[in-house]
Amino acid sequence: MSPRRVIGVDAGGTKLLGGVVDEELTVHARAHRLWRGRERGEVLDRMVEVVEELRAAEPGAVAVGFGIPSLVDYRSGTSLSSVHLPLNDVPFRDLMSERLGLPVLVDNDANLAALAEQRYGAAKGCSEVLLLTLGTGIGGGLVLGGEVYRGSFGAAGEMGHMVVDVDGPPCGDGCPGNGCLEALASGSAIGREGAEAARQQPDSLLARAAGEGREVTGALVTELAHDGDSAAVEVIVRAGWFLGAGMAGLANIFNPQAIVVGGGAIAAGELLLGPAREELARRALPANRNGVRVVPAHFGVESGMMGAAVMALEGSGGS
Amino acid sequence: MSPRRVIGVDAGGTKLLGGVVDEELTVHARAHRLWRGRERGEVLDRMVEVVEELRAAEPGAVAVGFGIPSLVDYRSGTSLSSVHLPLNDVPFRDLMSERLGLPVLVDNDANLAALAEQRYGAAKGCSEVLLLTLGTGIGGGLVLGGEVYRGSFGAAGEMGHMVVDVDGPPCGDGCPGNGCLEALASGSAIGREGAEAARQQPDSLLARAAGEGREVTGALVTELAHDGDSAAVEVIVRAGWFLGAGMAGLANIFNPQAIVVGGGAIAAGELLLGPAREELARRALPANRNGVRVVPAHFGVESGMMGAAVMALEGSGGS
Repeated sequence: MSPRRVIGVDAGGTKLLGGVVDEELTVHARAHRLWRGRERGEVLDRMVEVVEELRAAEPGAVAVGFGIPSLVDYRSGTSLSSVHLPLNDVPFRDLMSERLGLPVLVDNDANLAALAEQRYGAAKGCSEVLLLTLGTGIGGGLVLGGEVYRGSFGAAGEMGHMVVDVDGPPCGDGCPGNGCLEALASGSAIGREGAEAARQQPDSLLARAAGEGREVTGALVTELAHDGDSAAVEVIVRAGWFLGAGMAGLANIFNPQAIVVGGGAIAAGELLLGPAREELARRALPANRNGVRVVPAHFGVESGMMGAAVMALEGSGGS
Repeated sequence: MSPRRVIGVDAGGTKLLGGVVDEELTVHARAHRLWRGRERGEVLDRMVEVVEELRAAEPGAVAVGFGIPSLVDYRSGTSLSSVHLPLNDVPFRDLMSERLGLPVLVDNDANLAALAEQRYGAAKGCSEVLLLTLGTGIGGGLVLGGEVYRGSFGAAGEMGHMVVDVDGPPCGDGCPGNGCLEALASGSAIGREGAEAARQQPDSLLARAAGEGREVTGALVTELAHDGDSAAVEVIVRAGWFLGAGMAGLANIFNPQAIVVGGGAIAAGELLLGPAREELARRALPANRNGVRVVPAHFGVESGMMGAAVMALEGSGGS
């Protein structure tokens, strides 16, 4: 008998990634989409389309798991609100289950990335795991006592919105705060500081690239840092320090075994994680510092999709 | 049949408080001690003495719960380390159980204060509860999903050592960091800022008190703030802002229903909690801000003792 299989779908703010995954975590097919519109109907249609494409390519899935960038009430399967997709107050699970004719489970995308890394990835074997996804913003997921922790109504895990520099820059994107970790160490923050560094250091590669009309994004700063531009390296190192200061607090709060770092911004690799580890070691209480590892995500950009599949496998009575 | 009773003991860094408590939470007797020495043997003797005094006054206790200011391995009942008492690597539960001839349970004091407030106090009926005790330092306890959360080896809940001001003052007292919540909003921090305010504002009551040779402590600043001294009020308000900034991060991380504030520093009452609530409301994500209440501890200075009793009642098969 071939292993049970499910479909996992990770619906991000700009794109959709789905896969047919079996209980040995083998991916049998993948499908991608970019969102073309921002209408709720179109977004839901696109999700159905991806699932149907995957069912046609590799039949036999017994359930579908969705990760969405929303505040999700897990028990009812409702998307309460989202700043990234038009999914406010949508009875997502029931609606999708009816359209697909399959059992559906849904959770916040960062929660599922944490689940995948804890069950089968960079934090396998650990019961207390924090995940930070560094992209445009900073998302977070928690696995505590071996289970996803969601808080009182599903809004837990927003570690990007922990205040690290009380007088720091405004956070934005639905957050009224300032000096949050996201405002200091996200891809956007790295881009913003990179643009400032380009202005301050006209001889840098960063300044040259900006002068050629390239937009100074987190990705550009990372690329030039890898090329050895000291201005760019400095920006990444500084973001790493902030990240490490945030992690020190998290280590003291949770006494976790692992903090997993995922998302696009970890293209910076050790340039970012090295300073983060140093700052964590400098600031955290000795017991918590010694008990925690900081590790890059194993599943990379597929951790959300894999987590959605893991949820579907576990929720449909197996794995 | 009279209700089952236990003994709860809260062993702080400077004093010991014990009580005979029944399952209706009635306290039948209390006993206090100050530590006279700092030898391990003497500290343990003093604990035994208090328990025996209570047993003599009100017989019939079926178990004893201890809250200690230590990193505790709850499952083995071992005190792994403590910066406040000579209790490093002590098999506390087994040792005390043998000396007392009764079942013994032991946990970190702040964990137990959180347990008391969640079960019967200011956060009764809430499943997700954070407790901050503002004294000389800032301790923390977590109740998640209705149970005390301890992290991977018992060191969780140190919310006083969350970085809130990355360039802030050194933390001290066993913490290598700086700008931690404890360095900004504890009783000691209020005293430090009060001394500075006395220097800056020579016409203030604070400056006058300092000139009379009184030590500028958190308690003095609080007293003069209640008397209406604007310099003292300003110091308390600023500590409240920092506290609220820290709470905003905690609300975003945990999505709790309640943050309970206890410890000596809440003698400042609404002078401190008002600004904290304002800053929390200003900074937290809307969903998390609306879902959380900030409330003073119900059991006040007895929350650790009550929590130790609750643990003993639950751990000895009742309540």
